[in-house]
Order: sequence, then structure tokens, then C-alpha cells
Amino acid sequence: MECYTLIVACLLCLLPLATCVTPSGTTPGIQNIFLGRCLAYQEIIKPYPQTTVDCNSLWVKFTTSFEGKEPCGLTSKDYSDFIETSLSSLPEDKAMFWSGTYRVAHDYAESGKRFITLEDTLLGYIMNGLVWCGQTAPPGINYHSCPSFNGCPVAANTAFWGKASSQFASRARGTVTVLLDGSNPAKPAYRTDSYFARFELPSLSPEEVQMVNIYVVHAVNQPYRETCNNGTLPAMQRAVKEHGLKYTCQDNPQAILHLLCVDSPGSLMCRIAQHGNYSHIFG
Amino acid sequence: MECYTLIVACLLCLLPLATCVTPSGTTPGIQNIFLGRCLAYQEIIKPYPQTTVDCNSLWVKFTTSFEGKEPCGLTSKDYSDFIETSLSSLPEDKAMFWSGTYRVAHDYAESGKRFITLEDTLLGYIMNGLVWCGQTAPPGINYHSCPSFNGCPVAANTAFWGKASSQFASRARGTVTVLLDGSNPAKPAYRTDSYFARFELPSLSPEEVQMVNIYVVHAVNQPYRETCNNGTLPAMQRAVKEHGLKYTCQDNPQAILHLLCVDSPGSLMCRIAQHGNYSHIFG
Repeated sequence: MECYTLIVACLLCLLPLATCVTPSGTTPGIQNIFLGRCLAYQEIIKPYPQTTVDCNSLWVKFTTSFEGKEPCGLTSKDYSDFIETSLSSLPEDKAMFWSGTYRVAHDYAESGKRFITLEDTLLGYIMNGLVWCGQTAPPGINYHSCPSFNGCPVAANTAFWGKASSQFASRARGTVTVLLDGSNPAKPAYRTDSYFARFELPSLSPEEVQMVNIYVVHAVNQPYRETCNNGTLPAMQRAVKEHGLKYTCQDNPQAILHLLCVDSPGSLMCRIAQHGNYSHIFG
Repeated sequence: MECYTLIVACLLCLLPLATCVTPSGTTPGIQNIFLGRCLAYQEIIKPYPQTTVDCNSLWVKFTTSFEGKEPCGLTSKDYSDFIETSLSSLPEDKAMFWSGTYRVAHDYAESGKRFITLEDTLLGYIMNGLVWCGQTAPPGINYHSCPSFNGCPVAANTAFWGKASSQFASRARGTVTVLLDGSNPAKPAYRTDSYFARFELPSLSPEEVQMVNIYVVHAVNQPYRETCNNGTLPAMQRAVKEHGLKYTCQDNPQAILHLLCVDSPGSLMCRIAQHGNYSHIFG
């Protein structure tokens, strides 16, 4: 939904910042992809709790949000109706947030079987990976080029995913899980300008959410740059506490470590202890 | 694509075997789901190697295969054109087959990032989970009820997925991987009536395939019913050898064990060895 980084986009287009565009416009075939995903989610994936939404009406609500409008002029209000119609309620203890940990978070969530990320809701499932933008000139949707939302005002930059994230967080109940990256040399694990800090944490209900479990992911065989006790994690824990929420913090819990170890089972950190042989459990 | 088991289907419909129907017909919105998936695969997922297919033409080829026809009268020939148009070539060493191990195989394959199953190809991605059938009466597609293909002649039962599986296998090159379930009390790990035995193994090219790596999956904390050395696995290895292929066989290789351990990290089989503490690698 947003184009790479500002630097990359500007190198590509060589235009002043405010008019910087991505190399591509609205996803070709977006209406079919939107409708197909909306139908497949309800007819084939059928997650619990089930969502019942009329896909054609939802497409109209989506296009009404941005069609014919200047893309950098949008605010979250433009998407309110669309987002509120398509976001379902969340089962207790299932909401998962992630920051810098897309792959491991989604592997762990397992498409809603273990946890539910925004991308596992009907709304996120439909919109994941789509690019779209409007234009004031006909046909109202720009299939040629979309602005780099990083070059738009903040309100337009986060109009959709910011609103979607906060609405998702406001539906969380029970225990919530947050996966952060403690190994990235380029980005702190917790940033006050992250989606989690700006949209998700402020939308978590202290009445409905009993616990925030923070998992700090440490890439196998790389330095632990940040842990629960150092770097930006202590600040995060203060922010969670100030919002009135209880929390735990764990560095690479075993379940996460097992996921990371699928790609490097031979490394020292990944070796499973030998507890004798298992001949006694052979059938 | 096929309805549950014959017993369940017949309990539901209480009709003689040959006319036994599933509780549902062709997936509602199948055209939109088909086109949306076809477009999303090419526009968003963009796997390597890229597949370039016109989705509307593909939909026509698909419906031409079965529309207006008696569903139990189909053979793989009816689907040939559709399947051959939509199956791409496979990168070396990436093809993965599975039998009774849908979840772990797909978690391991990681949507084509580690391995490519039939469901990760354009063809499998489009068709996964769809139900469809034709009828001789207008409108030619039956949205009310589809036959249990288990009750149809074998040719119709396997017309689509049998042909798709054998075409997929015929494109495999280099090392191929097979994941079997060694813990299921209801089904042997290797069955001569499995898709692997009937369609995939016979289609593997001894010239193009250098090695077959057999992985036997053993559920955590359950008896090892079958291993590489007992049960039906020795027969499988003979069959692979007789087809002119080299093979290896491993019981729960570490990478697979790590995947299984995500759900039970505390069990004895899953405990990661403690190699001292890691304070020296903290950044």
C-alpha cells in the first residue's frame, strides 16, 4: 500500500519530494482481486468468527473512499465506513501485532489458526499487497502512477492502514501478543513512530485487554541488539504500563525460536537436546 | 474439490452411492474467486519463475472443461488444455509432494519461499478449496449440489487433481521432497492408491530428477507408527528405486521437527539444548 522507501522512490522518479510517484499505479484488476478475496474469505477460508459481508457493497464503499479524490488529500475519515463494515470482532486472546517481523509473525499466526493479525481479518486479507489511488480527473482511479504516501501529508500517508490498525486494535480482548525485531541494525525494536505506538497501543482497551505479551525476535546467529532489558524495550514497557495495561516481555520464546530454527537447524542455538533415543515410543 | 469421505457424504444425503451428493454445489462466486486469484498471483504474489497467463482466457478454458457436461462422465482429457496452459515450469530442487501432511508440508514450503507444492503453482493457487461441477441442463454449472467424486468412476474422481498432480510432477527437476505422515493410526504413510503413488511418482522423470528426499513426519509425543525402516516405507523406497530414481529417507529431520515443536515447545522431544548463555553475543 505504500511504495518502498522514500529514497528508493525518489531515485526512481527523480522528481521533487511532494510529487514523487511509485513506478506503478493502482493494481491491475483490483476490482476482481478485491471481490475474489472477499468471496474466498467467506466461502472457502471461513475463519472463526465468521464475517458476513456483501462483497459488491463493500467494493462500492472502498471505491467511494478514494475515487475521484486527490490522493494526498485523504484522511482516515474517508475510509471509516469501509473499514468499519469489513472488520469483524476478534476472538479472545487471538490478536497479534507485529513491527519489523512480518514473516515470522505471519508464520507464527498461521493464517489465523494460532493468532490473528490484521492481515488475517477480512479487511486485511482483501487489502494486503494492493496498491490504489484516486485522481480528480476521470476515470477517478489512477492506474498509471500512485504517489509515494511518504511524500504526502501524514494524514494521507496513514489514512487507510493507520485507521485499519487502530480499529483492529480496538477490537482486541484478553491477551494480546506483539512481535518485535530485536536484531535489526537499521531499526530499533520499538519506535514511537511505529504503527504499534501510534495506532495500536492507544486503541487497546484497558478494560478489555488483560495482558500484553511482548516477544522480542532475535535472528539466529546474529547479535542480540535489543532485549527486554535494554535498547528501546524498557521505553515500550513504560508506554504499555502508562496506557494502563499489564505486560510480559520475553526474548525469543521457545515457540518463536523453533520457527526461526526451521531455516538453520544445524546452528548451535537450534540444536535440540538429545534425551536418549526414542525407540520406546516406536509403535 | 472432493467431498469429505464417502461415508459422511452418504450419511448426509441418504441416497444410493452413485447419486450421492455433497451438501453444497459449485462454490458461490467461483468466477470472481478464480479471476481474483489468477490476477493476484501474477500482480501481487509474483513468484519466481513468473507465469504470464490471460486470466479471462483461462477461465474460459476451465469452464469449457466441465460446463454442460455430466460430472461423473469427465476424464482427465477434459481438463488437459486448462491444466497445460496454467502450469508453469518449476525451479530446480523446489518441488514438494505431500500425503497426509497438508499443514506441515505447507508450513514448511512457506508459500513457495522454501519449496513449491502443487498449491503454490498458479494452477493450484487458483483451484485450492474450490468446488465445481457441470450439468447437462442449463446453465451448465450446478450451484446446488455436486456429486461426491468418490461415488463417480475413478476417471472422473481424479480427472482434475490427478491430471494436475501428474503434470506438476512431470515438471520437477533436481531434488524433490516428499512429506509423509508416520503417525496416523488410520492411514499408512505410503499407500499404493495415494496421489503420490498413482500420479506423481510415475510422472517424475529419471533424467531430470536426481534425488527423492523422503521425510517421514512423526507427531510430537505420539508413537512412531512407521519409520523409514518399517511399515510401508520400505515398499515406497523400492517403488522409487524401481522407477529409476535415487532416494534418501529421514525420520523427522530437524527442520521439520522445529516446525512441529512450535505448538509444543515444552515437550521433551522439543527442548533446545542449553549451550551456556548467550550474553557474549549481545550487541
